[in-house]
Amino acid sequence: MESIYRRIVVAVDRDDEVGLYTLKQLAERFCERGSHLKLGLPFVLEYGVRGVREMFSVCGDHGSMVILDLKMADIGAIMRMIASKFRGAASAVIAHAFVGYNSGLRDLKEALDEWGVKLVLVASMSHPGSREVLDHCMERIFEVIDRTRPWGVVAPATRPTVVASVKARFPYVRILSPGVGAQGAKPGDAICSGADYEIVGRYITKSPEPVKALDRVVEELKRRCGG
Amino acid sequence: MESIYRRIVVAVDRDDEVGLYTLKQLAERFCERGSHLKLGLPFVLEYGVRGVREMFSVCGDHGSMVILDLKMADIGAIMRMIASKFRGAASAVIAHAFVGYNSGLRDLKEALDEWGVKLVLVASMSHPGSREVLDHCMERIFEVIDRTRPWGVVAPATRPTVVASVKARFPYVRILSPGVGAQGAKPGDAICSGADYEIVGRYITKSPEPVKALDRVVEELKRRCGG
Repeated sequence: MESIYRRIVVAVDRDDEVGLYTLKQLAERFCERGSHLKLGLPFVLEYGVRGVREMFSVCGDHGSMVILDLKMADIGAIMRMIASKFRGAASAVIAHAFVGYNSGLRDLKEALDEWGVKLVLVASMSHPGSREVLDHCMERIFEVIDRTRPWGVVAPATRPTVVASVKARFPYVRILSPGVGAQGAKPGDAICSGADYEIVGRYITKSPEPVKALDRVVEELKRRCGG
Repeated sequence: MESIYRRIVVAVDRDDEVGLYTLKQLAERFCERGSHLKLGLPFVLEYGVRGVREMFSVCGDHGSMVILDLKMADIGAIMRMIASKFRGAASAVIAHAFVGYNSGLRDLKEALDEWGVKLVLVASMSHPGSREVLDHCMERIFEVIDRTRPWGVVAPATRPTVVASVKARFPYVRILSPGVGAQGAKPGDAICSGADYEIVGRYITKSPEPVKALDRVVEELKRRCGG
C-alpha cells in the first residue's frame, strides 16, 4: 500500500524572505516522506526558473512531483511559451479550463504531451469569489475538461460536493484539492469525497515546525479516511 | 490633441533570445513616440522583476505606461502577493474578472489602489476558445467588473461587438483590445468600435523594422478612425 504521505501536496507560496537553501532542505524532508510540492508564481518570481529546477531535482530523487501552479489563463501560444521555460523542471503544470480548448488548451496539451509533463486543469476554486462566475459555468468547464483530457483536475476541498461531481463525471482523472488548513477545509474533507490529493499550504509552511505539521495532517487523514 | 501613438500598446512577449539591452532600446523608441508597453509572463520569466522595472524606468520618462500582463487568475491573497513584487515597476496589472470579487479581486484592487497601480480586468479573450466558456458567462463577468470598478477592461479587437457592449455597459472604463495584427484584427477595428487602446504584438515585434511597423499601424488607424 502506498504511503498516505503520497496523497499530500505541500503548497510553497510563502512570501516571507527565506533563502532557497532553507526551502530546499524543507522540501527534501516533505519529499523523502513521499509528499509532493506545488510551487506558485510568488515562488517563481522570487527564485526564478532555476529555483523551480532545483526543487525538482531534490524531490524527483524521491519520486515526488513538483507541480507548477501558475494558474495559466492565456491563449495557447502564450501558455506553451511559458510552459516551455520549465521543461525538465516540473512534473505537472496547472492551467484554467475556462480559457477553452481551441487555440487554447489544445496547444498547451500537445506541447506538454511531447515533453512528458502532466496537465492539471482548474475546474473550480476554493475562495468565495468562485461562486460568482465559475460555479455557474461548471457544465461548460466540464466540456472543456472532457475535450482536453488532462491528467488532473483542481477542485476545492472547501466544497466536497464539487469534488464528488468531478469524480462522478471524470472517473479517470486525478483530483487535486486545495483549501485544506488556512482556508477552512479539514484534512480528509476532499479525499473522503473522492479526491486523490489534498493540497496544504500555510498550515504546514507557516507552522513553526512544518514537518510535524505535515505529520499531523497525515495522521488526521488516516483517522478520518483510513490509511 | 493627444498623439494617436498614445492609443497603441506594444505587447512584448517575444520568446526568441534577445538581450534586455536591445529590448530597452526598442521600448525607448516606442515610448518616445507616445506608445505604451505590455509585458507578459514570458518576459518576466526571462528577465525577472528587475527587467520589468528597467522597462518601466525607460518608458515612464516619456509618460508611457508599462502594463504587466500576467493574466492573474488566483485567490486574492496570492494575486496581491504577486502584484506586490512589481510595486514601482508597472503602471497597471491585468487580472481575470472571472475569479470573482469576494476574497478575489477585492483584495487585489485594495492593494493596487494603495500602491497607485491601475487594475485592468479581462472580460473576454481574442482566441476561438473564448467562445467555449467565457462568452457564455459574460453577464456574470460584467457584474464582477461592475463591483470591482477597474481602471480598464480587456476586450478583443477580433470581436468588435464585444468591445461595443463593454463600452455601452461601462462608459467610464478604458477598453484595451488585443488581437490586432497576427491574430487577425486590423488596426482600427477596436478603436472605431469604442476601444481606447489597441494592443499590437507580433506584427510589430517580429517585424524586421519594428518602429516602422508601429508607424504603419498608426497611419492605418488614422486613415480608418480619423486622427
